[in-house]
Amino acid sequence: MSSTPSGPGLPLVPRFTEQGYSREQVRERREWIERQTGVQLPLVGSCAIPAESMRGNIENPIGSVQMPLGIAGPVLVDGAHARGMFYVPMATTEGALVRSYERGMVMLTRAGGVTARIYSDQNLVSPIFSFDTVADAHRFAVELPRHTDALRAQAEATTKHGRLLKVETRPSGRSVIVNFYYYTADAHGMNMIVKATESAAAWLVAQGIAPRFAVFSGLSSEKRASGFLLTGAKGKTVVAGARVPAAVLQAYMRVTPAAVVSTWHDSVIGHLQASAIGFNAHYANGLTAIFIACGQDVANVTNSSIGITDYELTPDGDLYATVTLPSLTVATVGGGTALGTSAECLRLLGCVGSGHAPKFAEIVAAALLGGELSMAGAIASGEFVAAHEIYGRNRP
Amino acid sequence: MSSTPSGPGLPLVPRFTEQGYSREQVRERREWIERQTGVQLPLVGSCAIPAESMRGNIENPIGSVQMPLGIAGPVLVDGAHARGMFYVPMATTEGALVRSYERGMVMLTRAGGVTARIYSDQNLVSPIFSFDTVADAHRFAVELPRHTDALRAQAEATTKHGRLLKVETRPSGRSVIVNFYYYTADAHGMNMIVKATESAAAWLVAQGIAPRFAVFSGLSSEKRASGFLLTGAKGKTVVAGARVPAAVLQAYMRVTPAAVVSTWHDSVIGHLQASAIGFNAHYANGLTAIFIACGQDVANVTNSSIGITDYELTPDGDLYATVTLPSLTVATVGGGTALGTSAECLRLLGCVGSGHAPKFAEIVAAALLGGELSMAGAIASGEFVAAHEIYGRNRP
Amino acid sequence: MSSTPSGPGLPLVPRFTEQGYSREQVRERREWIERQTGVQLPLVGSCAIPAESMRGNIENPIGSVQMPLGIAGPVLVDGAHARGMFYVPMATTEGALVRSYERGMVMLTRAGGVTARIYSDQNLVSPIFSFDTVADAHRFAVELPRHTDALRAQAEATTKHGRLLKVETRPSGRSVIVNFYYYTADAHGMNMIVKATESAAAWLVAQGIAPRFAVFSGLSSEKRASGFLLTGAKGKTVVAGARVPAAVLQAYMRVTPAAVVSTWHDSVIGHLQASAIGFNAHYANGLTAIFIACGQDVANVTNSSIGITDYELTPDGDLYATVTLPSLTVATVGGGTALGTSAECLRLLGCVGSGHAPKFAEIVAAALLGGELSMAGAIASGEFVAAHEIYGRNRP
Amino acid sequence: MSSTPSGPGLPLVPRFTEQGYSREQVRERREWIERQTGVQLPLVGSCAIPAESMRGNIENPIGSVQMPLGIAGPVLVDGAHARGMFYVPMATTEGALVRSYERGMVMLTRAGGVTARIYSDQNLVSPIFSFDTVADAHRFAVELPRHTDALRAQAEATTKHGRLLKVETRPSGRSVIVNFYYYTADAHGMNMIVKATESAAAWLVAQGIAPRFAVFSGLSSEKRASGFLLTGAKGKTVVAGARVPAAVLQAYMRVTPAAVVSTWHDSVIGHLQASAIGFNAHYANGLTAIFIACGQDVANVTNSSIGITDYELTPDGDLYATVTLPSLTVATVGGGTALGTSAECLRLLGCVGSGHAPKFAEIVAAALLGGELSMAGAIASGEFVAAHEIYGRNRP
Repeated sequence: MSSTPSGPGLPLVPRFTEQGYSREQVRERREWIERQTGVQLPLVGSCAIPAESMRGNIENPIGSVQMPLGIAGPVLVDGAHARGMFYVPMATTEGALVRSYERGMVMLTRAGGVTARIYSDQNLVSPIFSFDTVADAHRFAVELPRHTDALRAQAEATTKHGRLLKVETRPSGRSVIVNFYYYTADAHGMNMIVKATESAAAWLVAQGIAPRFAVFSGLSSEKRASGFLLTGAKGKTVVAGARVPAAVLQAYMRVTPAAVVSTWHDSVIGHLQASAIGFNAHYANGLTAIFIACGQDVANVTNSSIGITDYELTPDGDLYATVTLPSLTVATVGGGTALGTSAECLRLLGCVGSGHAPKFAEIVAAALLGGELSMAGAIASGEFVAAHEIYGRNRP
Repeated sequence: MSSTPSGPGLPLVPRFTEQGYSREQVRERREWIERQTGVQLPLVGSCAIPAESMRGNIENPIGSVQMPLGIAGPVLVDGAHARGMFYVPMATTEGALVRSYERGMVMLTRAGGVTARIYSDQNLVSPIFSFDTVADAHRFAVELPRHTDALRAQAEATTKHGRLLKVETRPSGRSVIVNFYYYTADAHGMNMIVKATESAAAWLVAQGIAPRFAVFSGLSSEKRASGFLLTGAKGKTVVAGARVPAAVLQAYMRVTPAAVVSTWHDSVIGHLQASAIGFNAHYANGLTAIFIACGQDVANVTNSSIGITDYELTPDGDLYATVTLPSLTVATVGGGTALGTSAECLRLLGCVGSGHAPKFAEIVAAALLGGELSMAGAIASGEFVAAHEIYGRNRP
Repeated sequence: MSSTPSGPGLPLVPRFTEQGYSREQVRERREWIERQTGVQLPLVGSCAIPAESMRGNIENPIGSVQMPLGIAGPVLVDGAHARGMFYVPMATTEGALVRSYERGMVMLTRAGGVTARIYSDQNLVSPIFSFDTVADAHRFAVELPRHTDALRAQAEATTKHGRLLKVETRPSGRSVIVNFYYYTADAHGMNMIVKATESAAAWLVAQGIAPRFAVFSGLSSEKRASGFLLTGAKGKTVVAGARVPAAVLQAYMRVTPAAVVSTWHDSVIGHLQASAIGFNAHYANGLTAIFIACGQDVANVTNSSIGITDYELTPDGDLYATVTLPSLTVATVGGGTALGTSAECLRLLGCVGSGHAPKFAEIVAAALLGGELSMAGAIASGEFVAAHEIYGRNRP
Repeated sequence: MSSTPSGPGLPLVPRFTEQGYSREQVRERREWIERQTGVQLPLVGSCAIPAESMRGNIENPIGSVQMPLGIAGPVLVDGAHARGMFYVPMATTEGALVRSYERGMVMLTRAGGVTARIYSDQNLVSPIFSFDTVADAHRFAVELPRHTDALRAQAEATTKHGRLLKVETRPSGRSVIVNFYYYTADAHGMNMIVKATESAAAWLVAQGIAPRFAVFSGLSSEKRASGFLLTGAKGKTVVAGARVPAAVLQAYMRVTPAAVVSTWHDSVIGHLQASAIGFNAHYANGLTAIFIACGQDVANVTNSSIGITDYELTPDGDLYATVTLPSLTVATVGGGTALGTSAECLRLLGCVGSGHAPKFAEIVAAALLGGELSMAGAIASGEFVAAHEIYGRNRP
């Protein structure tokens, strides 16, 4: 599995003309690493993704990995974009996860379905402009609004789909971080908007309006957890909620609405004690499983899983449950969405291609609500361990 | 892709005897969902994972998803467990990611390799015990240390591999959260230690020492981002670092050590402005790609990606670069580690099975260091966008 | 110092007609508590604040407390509002604090003075509107912009000085938090804007636009620490900075610019490790001392002390130092600003009354910069303990 | 109020032999600043604090400031240290604050009093030790436990009252932050333990165990807000709680227990949305007023005000209310505790001098609980604005 440096040169992964995306080149590369490490990779090699289609999605390809795919549902969604019943594809190796989400989704469907709404739909890049003095930085921030139209022209000249929505400044010493917010249609669009922002920022430098910049300041929180994400900074801000009658909750979860609220209360305290960001039971489980299945950028689970789950008693003694996802980054165009199994999974949801990202976002939010309720029910009823004994191998 | 509720019953996913893990049953289920949605799933069906082996890893299986797999490296690691050169398997659909990590790894190897060390190795469950009064809760916390041996006996009776390391209390009103810290060997071990903790907690109730508990308080931050994780709460606390000579940095990244430190400075300010947890450029990218490839619980990227990347100038004008990962949860036993392509990928690293989780952790940390340096270099040199134009399709 | 409940009634603090603000009534109340506790309060009684002037600033008055007052300076400020040299009054009992701030201020003056700028000037109240369903909440958020003029009319009808700047929504389950941002002139203005907001919110309910609200959601972070404050949520966003020549730094602090930057680096890591909000050495020390001296609401130090201190090397080898204070809440009108010694202290700064709050904010920021530099210098030079041995009694 | 630099020298505050703490020298200094600024300071000059007693508490003294003092209570406390009824001195200029706290305290007393308990009692300093490599840092952390006795001997040799409780390490790249936890008896003790820690750290360097250190890393969060403080890092961890019968709550607050719980729920959501640390309504108000009155280091409100307020319904329909204060730093010895009015205020509570800090901490926690309940009641009943109209002047 390892080797020592061979003389003057390192044993680099072989390079091919045109980057090596032919079926043959992928095989050659795989055989090279097999020789290099003495490990055989037959399953990696039994790849159903056409080699050439990997171009733009990965470098140094040697095949593919496979992960089990299950389906959970049906979940009835009453969204502005998603309407009807859906079966959600989930790729995971965590036993009990699909069953848990399915339980919640079916209960929600019995309860009358999930209402979902999108509040905002954007993505951002946050370059930092540096100046020699505090006075220069302040002057820049004061003057920047005058250049909004020019910045938009510069940024949008680089992209067919991105639209610059607004520009906001955040002073920081003798620097100014500028949040460029974009609408990116059905793509996640990071490459698109980084390129657009770099163009706009370079224009400011070329005009002598700012002396220098770095395209990333870290404020945008792409693929990182932060409190800033709670402002709805990036991606879609989606809320999903449902009234769950006490009888339905009892039938599916064997708990009362009051018990779920009490579990929420204890868990919120735990989150506060942990200096957690927001509050949720296990968004990451559902998001990861759906993102892997549907060709999303799975690393975006780190920002997408920031949010707040809430439970309230209604005057009638039922439960009103919600998830608020301020920075959900999902796409139905670009990235891995068109690749092999990803396209099939998106198609299962009727979410392939342009015009479907909002629908997909609403379905995801509804699915997460199911997962939250199922976990809360398992904790409140004390059945969590028992359930995992049945479905998880609990092997070690 | 959707249907309406059919009379009294919902169109539930079909149930099978023994949960339906035979090849035939997986096919039947897949065909059912194809009929239900009108969507064909040939690639999902071309599954190389033996159906029966999915039991315990997923429910309602209909096949598998495939994701492209690339290799990055070699990275030379000088760890306490991992020693030698490694090629790291990464599954992703984000163009340029593998190339970026590879660039950093090769540079680190040229620089003399990465030193990696593990500071702690544990996992925790944080049940909350509730009392009628503040005085009762306080009495419980004061008395709990007396019961440590009994708690250990109760907890360890449920598991062959887990060992209770310590028990700590966190007062919260009239409740007390108790952190049960365990050593879980080469498994992530959540099911194991939740079961053990439930047993120990139930014993406290049976003895009349506490009136009631809920097994999850939320403090443990499993699959969530929190400040508490920075204390090394869960998983392995791993540090990896390397001295990168200025000439090597220049050759690979076209930047000076001072430029990297300056980029770090700007980005830290951005993270502080964002109320981010810790500081990193894109741990989530590397972790997600490696976790998917190697059968890890990918949702754990949310906690594993908390950490701090640091750059310092040495007196000689070189760069000293480190990553500190306080809560890295990786496993070489249990979960999805033994499934098909996962086992092949772990084997590439010489990390299959018992005794290899620490080695795997050190390799992961070294790989992340490569990714951090590569990203920092791309930002500092202003080449980030250009690089993504070449490798990413930038399709939308 | 204590007594037991006396029969059916509790020994309540005596009530007086007109709330008891005459000199005689204050004395009677003081004598009552002396009898009740057996403790004499001669110094509390030697109060220079006219009794009647306490009305509106405190209830149940028994006299006044006294705290030592020192002066630090001069600090030369080049602000948009504050221009010239200032001696800053600081009330404290922490030995070495005034000397430390003085050292920093004098050094800054020698270095050419401090540039200060205000980026924004506002305060906010964040009521939460609750609905029966997610759909209702969403509809409200979508429609709210239509009512901006009406909300402004309602809000501004309650105040002579407050102006409603903007209204922003933050979705949260089936609720919507609405941030009402105001300009409050030279007052902190919380009472003013809470009243205005309640009026506007009540109008929304009266019109049937929302069914109910609570005037405080907690989001506004009044007198609490939060990441949200970094967005400049409340108070003035002020930045102060200065270039400190290496020779000046050496003369006053006996350290090099590089040593200060290195100390900053270590301390930022410590702050990240602590899940701190922002980064600073000891804003709270300077803010508290100035706020007590100048009749500010001292509890607002909790939000005002959120910010970021930054140090950078200039190309010439000097130090550029800044403080960024996003949510500094200071006033020169209202609250305790007109009371006895407070008015004298504000007068020392030329900051009494209307039109002076921005000037006061710039001076405060400049003073804090002095304190940050002095502390950084003491840490970098290793002289912190020695300095406190000289000036602090270090009594226990 | 300002002047220009006078030739080669700056107009520095006059220096005196022996630092200038005689009554005459304080007067001279005051007259100097009056001349310098043209502002008269008669009230600052009417100072009841003996000039010489200011030595060690302030530099450049020119007199004192005065702040109105009120009393709130009685609050009945059932603590481990504080037992009986107390009238709490509060210095403030925020109208309605004392009345609000008084209302809560009296209600708690009617409800049967407040139970208070201390969980831990410590303070810490967190030096950072830096090494050349990750391997060196790791070796240091592994070996440090062997030196615990020697570190204790070094540290405790510098102090009569401080005791080193434990030493914990936090890895950070090629550095290691070491938390030195001390018991500081009735003093806050920062000077004491910084000196002790510096001595211990210098010993490690002298022994060649570590090459260098800085005494402050920032992790300890002295006078700053951080998530780390929730672990009980510094000061006393105190919990206070009370059962408030529904009838008592109704009589005093005109609300039901359910309404208070509902307000808590909304406000917790607001805090989560704000990325706040912990949850409270207005600890800072009560802490600041008591700290100013009782000669505490008021800047420590920033860390002391971190905590969690909680409300729960009891099975009988009453309210159980608690405050959890993990890092309350209060003292009855040292700092400003012995100065003039401070000593009188502490005497009101029977908390002067050695042996009384725990008692004081329990009273403070009980007072804060009163303030939290009163604020929650005002929000829940919708009477907040009306109350401030009566008691606050609402002047601007």
